[in-house]
Amino acid sequence: MNHGTNLLSPRIAIVGSGAIGGYFGACLANAGEDVHFLMRSDLEIVKRNGLSVRRMHAPSFTLSDVKCYASSAEIGPCDLVIVAFKSTDNETLARVLPPLLKENTVILTLQNGLGNVEFLQERFGEERVMGGLVFMGINRVAPGRIENYNPNGGTVTIGEPFARTTPRVAQVCELMKGAKIINRVAEDFQQALWRKLVWNVPFNGLSVVANATTDMVLDTPQLATLAHGLMKEVQAGAQALGYEITDEFVESQVAYTRPLGAYKPSSMLDYQAGRPVEIESIWGEPLRRGTAAGVSMPCLGTVYALIKSLVARRLAGNPVHDLNRGFF
Amino acid sequence: MNHGTNLLSPRIAIVGSGAIGGYFGACLANAGEDVHFLMRSDLEIVKRNGLSVRRMHAPSFTLSDVKCYASSAEIGPCDLVIVAFKSTDNETLARVLPPLLKENTVILTLQNGLGNVEFLQERFGEERVMGGLVFMGINRVAPGRIENYNPNGGTVTIGEPFARTTPRVAQVCELMKGAKIINRVAEDFQQALWRKLVWNVPFNGLSVVANATTDMVLDTPQLATLAHGLMKEVQAGAQALGYEITDEFVESQVAYTRPLGAYKPSSMLDYQAGRPVEIESIWGEPLRRGTAAGVSMPCLGTVYALIKSLVARRLAGNPVHDLNRGFF
Repeated sequence: MNHGTNLLSPRIAIVGSGAIGGYFGACLANAGEDVHFLMRSDLEIVKRNGLSVRRMHAPSFTLSDVKCYASSAEIGPCDLVIVAFKSTDNETLARVLPPLLKENTVILTLQNGLGNVEFLQERFGEERVMGGLVFMGINRVAPGRIENYNPNGGTVTIGEPFARTTPRVAQVCELMKGAKIINRVAEDFQQALWRKLVWNVPFNGLSVVANATTDMVLDTPQLATLAHGLMKEVQAGAQALGYEITDEFVESQVAYTRPLGAYKPSSMLDYQAGRPVEIESIWGEPLRRGTAAGVSMPCLGTVYALIKSLVARRLAGNPVHDLNRGFF
Repeated sequence: MNHGTNLLSPRIAIVGSGAIGGYFGACLANAGEDVHFLMRSDLEIVKRNGLSVRRMHAPSFTLSDVKCYASSAEIGPCDLVIVAFKSTDNETLARVLPPLLKENTVILTLQNGLGNVEFLQERFGEERVMGGLVFMGINRVAPGRIENYNPNGGTVTIGEPFARTTPRVAQVCELMKGAKIINRVAEDFQQALWRKLVWNVPFNGLSVVANATTDMVLDTPQLATLAHGLMKEVQAGAQALGYEITDEFVESQVAYTRPLGAYKPSSMLDYQAGRPVEIESIWGEPLRRGTAAGVSMPCLGTVYALIKSLVARRLAGNPVHDLNRGFF
């Protein structure tokens, strides 16, 4: 692999400046890194008011003079491109990324679920792509205002998508550390992806189909039971594919989630706002891969079908035929 | 069994004058039977405007001079009491029914799902209770206005709850026939109950959790697949309990449902109106009985958990914690 990029003092682009992109970019810029944000809706407000981060594990701050841009052509080539687009916007990346790339540019995707790494590798080259898994509890509460609800700051887990770890993984981790973003090295990134799905599948799923924040899932016995059943199906799928997920890890999800309080997973915010939801990467692809490996995933299949139908309806303006339809 | 009641020219009480009760009572009264309606919200409007029934398989009509009452004491003892309360109101029946009963009064319950017959038998005596299963597609579109969307009129299936058929079953069927209500005798009523659940579990269930009318369930591939999976679980539960439900019956549900058009199952109307939903009789009790018989019902379990949680939230005013909760 070609790992000759400058990741010690890199020029960084943040592509997708929602909750995750905004948080990572702001923390890196606040630590003195050279960060350039590609922004859409928040551009003018952030130019005017800056970017504020509230967090519990380290000082909160507001960043003024944010380097933000409306197009990637204005940013130009970078050493590190952090992709925090929704996976539903992946097709847009094919247009947005090229101006940011030079030889050796590293693309770090922080996207949820399965299939994103493969998408980027196919289009921009296998060697460029690194994976990062964000396990925090971050919301963008208003344009340019980001809050991290995790009392301990949460973690990002960085790794080579399909290989053992490399020196550039350590370099990116060092960057994160400087920005007070707690990080881990994923010795097996695919396993880490499945571990994250143990959380995303139930909590993002029930946030849409049961309209429940994470605390509600934990506090409603039948939802807590259902969440646990979904976790066990993800665990079984992962195990059938050769990724180890221990029972202890599954059981630890409740203790991890409790301190997040009334957290709204990203899928809930997307659904409520009428935006696309990351249906395929979080539920569809795990269901297909697990089922192909011979695992029965009926609860996941049920939640997937419901989300797919609910989201399609929402995007279409949520029409339910009216009862009094002039039948007679 | 004591079957000495007068069911040839009976004094009839309708308890619960919603869609089903209103339809049966109106059709019986229109055919010249002596029908007394216990009404709550619709009482004044029906007294003033009468009760109108629109149907496709027989002439529509409006009944004026409806005998309707605010209390069962005003009605007094009857030969036949038709119970069309929601099963969620069963506790109220303990108070409402006694003034309607004399020796030999027959109670015919038209309620959905499992557990209703047992409830009535425990409180009012085993021999009084008969079961009826309504398979039509009826909505109460406004106070005193009832529509039957089934082009063929639909059917009611009448039987002894836990025994082979008896002469009084034939008598009640004769009454229904006179009222142009197409009827069948259930040789095995428990089996008929489970057959009805093959429809109610998916279509009532998805009407709430997927916010989908019956045509939407049929026309959305993932919902149609999920509905079919739910039917197969109900079939497996029934079979484990000794009730035969053929594959042909399961597959016939689509053909039965298609002509109903954009039908809203009762659970959808109840949920949307913020009323209780028949959760336990339609999903909870079948799940418990099937599971106790050793059948795995993961899709039914998922739908049950979601409905229970959604309905509880709706009844509590649907509070979802607000995102901006002054966390910092």
